[in-house]
Amino acid sequence: MNTDPVTLRREYESFRALNVHLDMSRGRPSAAQLDLSVPMLDMRSGFVCEDGMDARNYGDTAGIPEIRRLFGELLGMPPEQVIAGGNSSINMLHDALTRALLNGPLEGDVPWSRLGRVRMLCPVPGYDWHFHMCDTLGIETVPVPLGKEGPDMDSVRELVKDPAVKGIVCVPMYSNPTGITYSDEVVEALAAMETAAPDFRIFWDNAYCVHHLYPDRRDRLANLYDTCVKHGVPDRPLLFTSTSKITFAGGGVAAMAASPANIRRQLSLLTYQLVCYDKVNQLRHARFLPDLAAVEKHLAKQAEIVRPKFELVLDTLEKTLSGIARWSRPLGGYFVCLWAPPGCAARTVELCRNAGVTRTPAGAPFPGGHDPEDSVIRIAPTMPPMEELRLAMRLLPVAVKLAASEKGLL
Amino acid sequence: MNTDPVTLRREYESFRALNVHLDMSRGRPSAAQLDLSVPMLDMRSGFVCEDGMDARNYGDTAGIPEIRRLFGELLGMPPEQVIAGGNSSINMLHDALTRALLNGPLEGDVPWSRLGRVRMLCPVPGYDWHFHMCDTLGIETVPVPLGKEGPDMDSVRELVKDPAVKGIVCVPMYSNPTGITYSDEVVEALAAMETAAPDFRIFWDNAYCVHHLYPDRRDRLANLYDTCVKHGVPDRPLLFTSTSKITFAGGGVAAMAASPANIRRQLSLLTYQLVCYDKVNQLRHARFLPDLAAVEKHLAKQAEIVRPKFELVLDTLEKTLSGIARWSRPLGGYFVCLWAPPGCAARTVELCRNAGVTRTPAGAPFPGGHDPEDSVIRIAPTMPPMEELRLAMRLLPVAVKLAASEKGLL
Repeated sequence: MNTDPVTLRREYESFRALNVHLDMSRGRPSAAQLDLSVPMLDMRSGFVCEDGMDARNYGDTAGIPEIRRLFGELLGMPPEQVIAGGNSSINMLHDALTRALLNGPLEGDVPWSRLGRVRMLCPVPGYDWHFHMCDTLGIETVPVPLGKEGPDMDSVRELVKDPAVKGIVCVPMYSNPTGITYSDEVVEALAAMETAAPDFRIFWDNAYCVHHLYPDRRDRLANLYDTCVKHGVPDRPLLFTSTSKITFAGGGVAAMAASPANIRRQLSLLTYQLVCYDKVNQLRHARFLPDLAAVEKHLAKQAEIVRPKFELVLDTLEKTLSGIARWSRPLGGYFVCLWAPPGCAARTVELCRNAGVTRTPAGAPFPGGHDPEDSVIRIAPTMPPMEELRLAMRLLPVAVKLAASEKGLL
Repeated sequence: MNTDPVTLRREYESFRALNVHLDMSRGRPSAAQLDLSVPMLDMRSGFVCEDGMDARNYGDTAGIPEIRRLFGELLGMPPEQVIAGGNSSINMLHDALTRALLNGPLEGDVPWSRLGRVRMLCPVPGYDWHFHMCDTLGIETVPVPLGKEGPDMDSVRELVKDPAVKGIVCVPMYSNPTGITYSDEVVEALAAMETAAPDFRIFWDNAYCVHHLYPDRRDRLANLYDTCVKHGVPDRPLLFTSTSKITFAGGGVAAMAASPANIRRQLSLLTYQLVCYDKVNQLRHARFLPDLAAVEKHLAKQAEIVRPKFELVLDTLEKTLSGIARWSRPLGGYFVCLWAPPGCAARTVELCRNAGVTRTPAGAPFPGGHDPEDSVIRIAPTMPPMEELRLAMRLLPVAVKLAASEKGLL
């Protein structure tokens, strides 16, 4: 393995001379993945839903029955405890937060915006949109270390003694970006813990609940709602997911599921927020993917496209950065997480950018964009075609090593 | 014209014996109208937008260029001052209100939720969803009489001297339910008036901006934004519309337009609320209705379906209630407004319901559901087929007269 600074610089400059322009900043599906869902768009007749409603007209604020049932299957929840929405689960999470701020999570709860301080636990490394959303809404983000089994529960248990800590927002399965899935013990602990805030909420952003990379190996996530029911806190979890990475990132359907009390509350506030969500798109989805089995079959096809990209990333890292950096080996989701030598992430990303490859900004997986170790680099391999990914992965190890070499770490 | 109580009661009972079940409570398009847009659903290839984005993937938070341009034409605004959203303009209006509450309308404005009291002017009779939305968000609704040319501007000018009055929410064209369009003088006065609140906003819900009933006669609405610019208050108006009653009520596209400062502000808060709206649906719409001319042609076809229904309603009212009640004769929109003799609206609606015809609840066009005169009845003729509408319109005058007769008003 080459670590000589002069050779590294030469390799880097020879890459720069290729004059590539690649954007690998976000976890986006590739065109090939999106193509798999195009047959869904063929819906030119039959607009009557199972409940007799015309999908094209107003009605069914909570979503059409067939899509609520599908999301119930995906999230392990009864359909009547599901609200199917528009195309963005992030928007549904945002709306739930907004309602907590303006109205309180349940009738009788103090609206969070009336409190002096609202704090949200954020496992890190985590999903930057969650942090930015909290910032935007005036909610203080509190980083909690995320390990291989989930957030460090000793820290969480300590932090939730503060009544200003109103919740935790997380991606519990194939976590963004580290790819881990919360263990049964962590799920149990999240349900069992005492929280000073009686209206504490777990915002469970289960974006990758069916996004397995391998046919024979997959993570399993315990049912948080059932666990919370068992521990007498049914209203604690709010579950979210979407088909953004099942069908179309720019035209899917999202859903939220929760306890009957939470769903009643959300619906009562939702009723005058809109008349209904896009039911034509809900029906289109429900016909294309009638049940969990259909979703899994559809995602197995996507895995065929995505898996070689993950393998290319992992093989390259293995061959080029063993002993210098470490990285995740996820069984699903959209990311590989690379831990560069401390102090090298920002410089690595800069070197990549200067050579034509845009990556997620270093620090993005941390609230405020601040990675205390300056180590985490999020790799999003799904979007580029294999040839481009191969190019980008030729550059990345050179950039890591060059950054480390500049710091005298090699 | 029959006004004999015994005969009226007999007519009513004979209608009841027909055992009909009709829901005319909401302004919904009919299946025949919806059918006109089904060809739009035929989009199985070509997903690249004018800006090179794949509509199926993430991106374009403000909407795709072609649909922003279309809504710009509909609202008389430059495309770059338009945000195209999901399927519901009510949701966009709600989001704009929510942002004003949590963040303030512009950077530096005090978030309205931090103020002790926020008041919103509501022209009445008006759109019940606006009132309920304000109630839900803790905003006090202040009714203002709506005349033939718009809200009573003497009242408005007086009320906006109160700094707690932060805005007015209204349907300025083919108003729901009275069908009037704000005159040029009223638009001018809304732009010219002094408001105690510097962050006063006009929520201009222009839902029926292209919904003309007649090919040769139509209302014209002055451009509120241009008028506000002229008067030095470009940030005052927020304009909303949607294709809910152009294509699909349950699957259209909505938009908001405003000053550059407002749009920048909304986008900066929108960025972390979602990744993007449903761009596949935006592209589908932009291809089906590429410009205002296409929209007008499409709506002319709908007018052919809708106009006979309005004429049936107006003819029936003319023949049965002249001298007893008065009503609107709109040139567009979705409603006919009937003013029953004072004290008779709730009873009329009850009599209709008991005979199998559900109407919009009496009082709904007023904040708190309270019509001080108990007179206004909203007639929504679009949804039922002609035969059903004919039935419903056989009942309505009998119910009005029976209610009036019970009160000794005939």
